[in-house]
Amino acid sequence: MPNRIVILGNNAAGSSVASAARKTNRDAEIILIDKGKYPAYSRCGLPYVLAGEIPSFQDLIAFPLSFYNIMKIDLKLETLVTAIDSKEKTLTTKHDGEFETIKYDTLVIATGASTFIPPVEGYNKEGVYGLRTIEDGVQIQKAMNKATSAVVIGAGFIGLEIAHALVQNDIKTTIVEMLPLMLPSMFDVDMSKFIQKKIEDRGVRVLLGQKLKKIRGKEKVQEVLIGTKKLPADLVIMATGVRANIDLAKQTGLTLGVGDRIIKVNSRMETSIAGIYAAGDCVESRNFITGLSCISQLGTTAVRQGKVAGINAAQGYSILPGVLSSAVTRMFGFEVGATGITELQAKMAGLETITGSLTSTTKPHYFPGRKEIRVKIIAEKEFGTVIGSQIVGGEDVAQRVNMTSLAVQNRMTVIELAKADTCYAPPVGETWEPVALASELAVAKICR
Amino acid sequence: MPNRIVILGNNAAGSSVASAARKTNRDAEIILIDKGKYPAYSRCGLPYVLAGEIPSFQDLIAFPLSFYNIMKIDLKLETLVTAIDSKEKTLTTKHDGEFETIKYDTLVIATGASTFIPPVEGYNKEGVYGLRTIEDGVQIQKAMNKATSAVVIGAGFIGLEIAHALVQNDIKTTIVEMLPLMLPSMFDVDMSKFIQKKIEDRGVRVLLGQKLKKIRGKEKVQEVLIGTKKLPADLVIMATGVRANIDLAKQTGLTLGVGDRIIKVNSRMETSIAGIYAAGDCVESRNFITGLSCISQLGTTAVRQGKVAGINAAQGYSILPGVLSSAVTRMFGFEVGATGITELQAKMAGLETITGSLTSTTKPHYFPGRKEIRVKIIAEKEFGTVIGSQIVGGEDVAQRVNMTSLAVQNRMTVIELAKADTCYAPPVGETWEPVALASELAVAKICR
Repeated sequence: MPNRIVILGNNAAGSSVASAARKTNRDAEIILIDKGKYPAYSRCGLPYVLAGEIPSFQDLIAFPLSFYNIMKIDLKLETLVTAIDSKEKTLTTKHDGEFETIKYDTLVIATGASTFIPPVEGYNKEGVYGLRTIEDGVQIQKAMNKATSAVVIGAGFIGLEIAHALVQNDIKTTIVEMLPLMLPSMFDVDMSKFIQKKIEDRGVRVLLGQKLKKIRGKEKVQEVLIGTKKLPADLVIMATGVRANIDLAKQTGLTLGVGDRIIKVNSRMETSIAGIYAAGDCVESRNFITGLSCISQLGTTAVRQGKVAGINAAQGYSILPGVLSSAVTRMFGFEVGATGITELQAKMAGLETITGSLTSTTKPHYFPGRKEIRVKIIAEKEFGTVIGSQIVGGEDVAQRVNMTSLAVQNRMTVIELAKADTCYAPPVGETWEPVALASELAVAKICR
Repeated sequence: MPNRIVILGNNAAGSSVASAARKTNRDAEIILIDKGKYPAYSRCGLPYVLAGEIPSFQDLIAFPLSFYNIMKIDLKLETLVTAIDSKEKTLTTKHDGEFETIKYDTLVIATGASTFIPPVEGYNKEGVYGLRTIEDGVQIQKAMNKATSAVVIGAGFIGLEIAHALVQNDIKTTIVEMLPLMLPSMFDVDMSKFIQKKIEDRGVRVLLGQKLKKIRGKEKVQEVLIGTKKLPADLVIMATGVRANIDLAKQTGLTLGVGDRIIKVNSRMETSIAGIYAAGDCVESRNFITGLSCISQLGTTAVRQGKVAGINAAQGYSILPGVLSSAVTRMFGFEVGATGITELQAKMAGLETITGSLTSTTKPHYFPGRKEIRVKIIAEKEFGTVIGSQIVGGEDVAQRVNMTSLAVQNRMTVIELAKADTCYAPPVGETWEPVALASELAVAKICR
């Protein structure tokens, strides 16, 4: 049995590694090292603190320090790892200016990712922020108090969640996206337009297919240049994605994956060097449908990878099947979610698709308080195998994403999904489940 | 192609038959005969009108008369069918005292079921009602205006939904169930007790394992005898189940199923006589898991059967796989739902089971408004194949029932379900989906 498991990084992945390792091996020494000053907290909750839906950033802390004591996890905060020696199985840490060498039997790298800020002119002015940490959140919250207009760069989930928070704080908001559609990695144009309209209806300006050129102002941002447009802004949020933190991994000589931007692991989350595992935003995933390497930097992917890495690091056995990157969010009073791949992603993988889409309601016509819901099912054209779903609605989207995620995981056809034995009661749903109806609309399109 | 499809009964099943037949065959003559005076309406909505959540009974009407015109369906209301001649392919109807003989090419029997009122002494007194039709609902609503205390006989879904309506109207309510647990066909004792406590917490008295002996009063009910107890009551609701309406089927010589109480059909919904189909509460189902004949008198089962019968009656081809009887309801501010079979039903089918249960919340600990949710997963012991779920929670139960229904349909193991690629966002769920966690708790119990 390993004597000592050392984990680098204590967020979604790292804390999951630690828990799973402890459950697998009661006696192992587990050391959890993080450069931040807080125990693990929910990054996904940050925009909702800004929106005023969660009272404070402190609420996001997932595990109090007592948790680490009970689990016998030696948590070292505000500690940097400066080097790994994979031959000697040691690493060098720096805390309070003091260096220390720590031996490990098994190492798990869960160093996560950092906000990517495009290096446009003026990117480092006061009033320009990314949102990744509590520290970022505190700064944005302060800036929001004085802001009257804001520009969000990037129309992914984080960008839209922040735009929602800004609007909740009565700040005039523009969302700018370089690609020609919102949420381009999860939705096709039809569903994306459906979402866009809902957001525009809430008073948000949306500029698609436009690039941030420059940020202007003295010390503080005053306006941004988007293509040929000038937008006044006293707050600019860069929701332009994240980059995996792989400096240590590179120095250690670990094999990298997709675009050399991320650590390569096998289905046990083991890296190219025996005894070193990795999990979370810093590792590559395998797409369950296409079998291709991909990047799936989601909290859910991170905790699942962390669990698998933790079990294996403690000499248990666990594998992670491919990912579907099922994801959901709620903003502007509605929910959007998706699983699997889009029509465009299917095309890029050489698959032709059929789809079924429909707009229904979350309760029958006669039940007060029903909300609109739109469901799109994507299937491969020859077998009719479900490969994805895209769902937008006033409520009850998340569990429909999960339902369709199971359909994909089980390689169900739209014929089978159309005949699913779904439940119904007037206060909670329609007699014919929209997911089943959307699937039925795709059945006739199967290649014959 | 058949010239004339005649359908008996115009509720969930019958109207689905008519729609599906029309979509399959644009030219067929479709005659839809019903003894009631309303076009098809939602029976499931009746308790919610009584609870005041739906404004009026008229709201429940699913299709206005114009729908039947557009679909070219000849709807004959307040029309009785008195005889079927399956050799001559004719039936005799009675309307306004006039008899008529109608020829059919294909016949679909969707005569439904009727409330079963146990013939105890006093069952026919004023103030004793079942709830099956709008007419029943109107009577109960009137009686509720004057009632101060009520007894509901039967702790199935309808019984509990009516109890909820009574409590909403400030009527002191007692639920009496002959069996030793509530919702005995859908929940095991552990989950049933969990539900019972929630209902009792709302001020409802629950008497289990007790039989209704007698109903007393002059013309109007004044008290009921339950075992040795006397309960004052000015309203008694018989939620004691339904019996399939099979008189015509019997006269016609159709083969019957389970306990000779229901019509036998094959997977195309065809009866023992060629050219006669049947669907809805009057037909037997096949349990997807056990393969055994069963009774599944649900609106969802009815519409699925209706669609299959309609397609086949119009000379299309469609089959219905076995049923899981997925069901859900909402009352007293929480939702309960289940799919597949219970531990007890598994035992009766010769299967041993393992289970995983846990109580979680519908949002993370830091998100305001989260509700408690309890999930139980039932699996077969050797393979770990998921065979059922039982879910109780403040919200988001229905789609989790659907998710687990897909798990059963796909014969997933708890190992696979524990690793499902579920989605998450703070306003709509927990990082670890409770369904996955409950499945994981069952994994260690698989027979080895």
